[in-house]
Amino acid sequence: MVARDTPMGSNEEGVEVTATMPVIGAEGIECPRHVGIVGLGLIGGSLALRLKAAGCRVSAWNHRPHPYAAARMAGIDCRDTLEELVEAQPDVLVLCNPLKVMPRVMQVISPIINPARTTLTDVGSVKGLVREQIHAAGLQDCYVGAHPMTGNEHSGWEAANARLFDNALWAITYDEHTEYRRIVQLAGMITRGLQNGLIIIDDEIHDCATSLISHMPHVVSTALINQLTVSPERNIAAELSAGCWRDMTRVALTDPDRTCAMVVENAENVSGLLRQMARRLESMADALDADDASAIHAFFTEGQPYRDFKAKMRGRHDETETVFTSLRIDPVHWRESFLRSAQRGEYIVRFTSGHHALAERREMIL
Amino acid sequence: MVARDTPMGSNEEGVEVTATMPVIGAEGIECPRHVGIVGLGLIGGSLALRLKAAGCRVSAWNHRPHPYAAARMAGIDCRDTLEELVEAQPDVLVLCNPLKVMPRVMQVISPIINPARTTLTDVGSVKGLVREQIHAAGLQDCYVGAHPMTGNEHSGWEAANARLFDNALWAITYDEHTEYRRIVQLAGMITRGLQNGLIIIDDEIHDCATSLISHMPHVVSTALINQLTVSPERNIAAELSAGCWRDMTRVALTDPDRTCAMVVENAENVSGLLRQMARRLESMADALDADDASAIHAFFTEGQPYRDFKAKMRGRHDETETVFTSLRIDPVHWRESFLRSAQRGEYIVRFTSGHHALAERREMIL
Repeated sequence: MVARDTPMGSNEEGVEVTATMPVIGAEGIECPRHVGIVGLGLIGGSLALRLKAAGCRVSAWNHRPHPYAAARMAGIDCRDTLEELVEAQPDVLVLCNPLKVMPRVMQVISPIINPARTTLTDVGSVKGLVREQIHAAGLQDCYVGAHPMTGNEHSGWEAANARLFDNALWAITYDEHTEYRRIVQLAGMITRGLQNGLIIIDDEIHDCATSLISHMPHVVSTALINQLTVSPERNIAAELSAGCWRDMTRVALTDPDRTCAMVVENAENVSGLLRQMARRLESMADALDADDASAIHAFFTEGQPYRDFKAKMRGRHDETETVFTSLRIDPVHWRESFLRSAQRGEYIVRFTSGHHALAERREMIL
Repeated sequence: MVARDTPMGSNEEGVEVTATMPVIGAEGIECPRHVGIVGLGLIGGSLALRLKAAGCRVSAWNHRPHPYAAARMAGIDCRDTLEELVEAQPDVLVLCNPLKVMPRVMQVISPIINPARTTLTDVGSVKGLVREQIHAAGLQDCYVGAHPMTGNEHSGWEAANARLFDNALWAITYDEHTEYRRIVQLAGMITRGLQNGLIIIDDEIHDCATSLISHMPHVVSTALINQLTVSPERNIAAELSAGCWRDMTRVALTDPDRTCAMVVENAENVSGLLRQMARRLESMADALDADDASAIHAFFTEGQPYRDFKAKMRGRHDETETVFTSLRIDPVHWRESFLRSAQRGEYIVRFTSGHHALAERREMIL
């Protein structure tokens, strides 16, 4: 473990090497040697299998031992208790348990984790709420938020599969307590252990963006099926429905309890966006009632930058060359360096040193 | 041409046989012998090709003659003028021209059409507006509305293809002027010539149902991309977006001018539904802000009858047997007979006689 590009974080002055330092090899930041996984469900199980396949040492604990026989066959070191897993001092400990047991899990971890040896992270789809719980448990100094963009309609170890992470993009999130070196260490797990790309943003922007592209649209989709359900002509409407309706209501057919939980966890952002959507729909209704051609035209052209972006993205699939850019991360203002990169539409694919990353350039919505 | 089940319509007393009588053969109502098509674009061209392949005589006119060479190769009788096509007195004349030239086309047709020889119909996605134009042109006595649920993102004769109508469902629409026998005649073209199913409903219910499952959702989808486009974090949101966002915004990426025209043609229905959707989203925002668990729960369970319906429909794909029911159409109250059948979720697949149809039973949203 050699950090050749110190200081790594703003609070790192010397060259003190600890387990929470990113591992730097000939090709840049490497995957941490030992990862602990709490919860061997769909995400945790898939993560464990993929990291193990990449040559990483993987320890795990699950609240019920039923996946252990199969997990051990795959080379995963299964522990009898959560305490045992924490005391094994993995370089990175990933919380993949359901959000509702998060406070209880943190309570167990908090008194026994060694922050000098272990970086704590999670995979929840809402970061603000987890961050609050982390602070309440006094774990903020060793925590980095994370959210992999993957999953499917299944759950449990039975559905776990290393390929679930094929081409997944991760968001790593920070707040004012986050240590830079722990971000780089986690990025090593994601880019080298999982072969995934990532962006690094703050909790608030993460939760705002995910409510915009997922949580709020889930509510809209549900409102559409509610509207059909109460229509006296619901059966005729269903008979006449085609691709537009099918696509727009697909997510409303998935488990409503899961959707409900997701929306409630990000309630403030979702509520604000719902009100904005309501105003957009109302104002389009006004324009239609008034036969206001210019307002109607404005409504249908407002999203043109997004249509242009999608057209450019489709065009790129035909090209063979991916464009990479070298990202220099400011040692002090690293939050801004990362955020600007994400806002330019870049994905980080590897840290070449402690303060340099390789990022894939994508199209931008202008 | 023998009508063995007269009177066919309420205004048919005797057994007077005209070209607008449905053709009845051993297997029930047959395809009309001669169909005229106005406009050889995607829909008109596909219709012409499919009817020709089914052995029907097909005549056509297009405002520009560029598809004529290929159409003639396919056996379609292409006419130099619209007048010539009308004067050929096809049993059914189908208007497949763009909606914006509809009044002009009707103006040409009106003085020369022979209502005793020809039934007039169209394929537009909004029926109320076409009906108004039909009345303005004095064509209401020979007109029946129709709307095939098919199409794709292409347009023009080059994209025409008989397979576009594979498994298409049609809505036939009526008002108080519609003659029963013309509906049955058109149903012969759809069920026997095209091998498609159909429902028979009034204009108003049609336009209300299509605004619910297509026009209003197109506006909602467009509002979603508008909302993303104006977000300062639009590029991060786009990076984090996955299946939910992709599905819900797909139709917003199609030609906005076409969507705009479709919405404006059905403005009143769309505007009403947009206001209802806005209220649903507002009230969910209120529930989230108030942390009102019971209101939130109610929102996520309101559409359960639709989820149950979809689950039953998916289950049916595994079964081999399709359930048919015999529909007796009341000679006087035929509008009610047809409407009730559609409301029960049935598709008419064939008229076995002038007042009997075979309908496929489907699941219902209860």
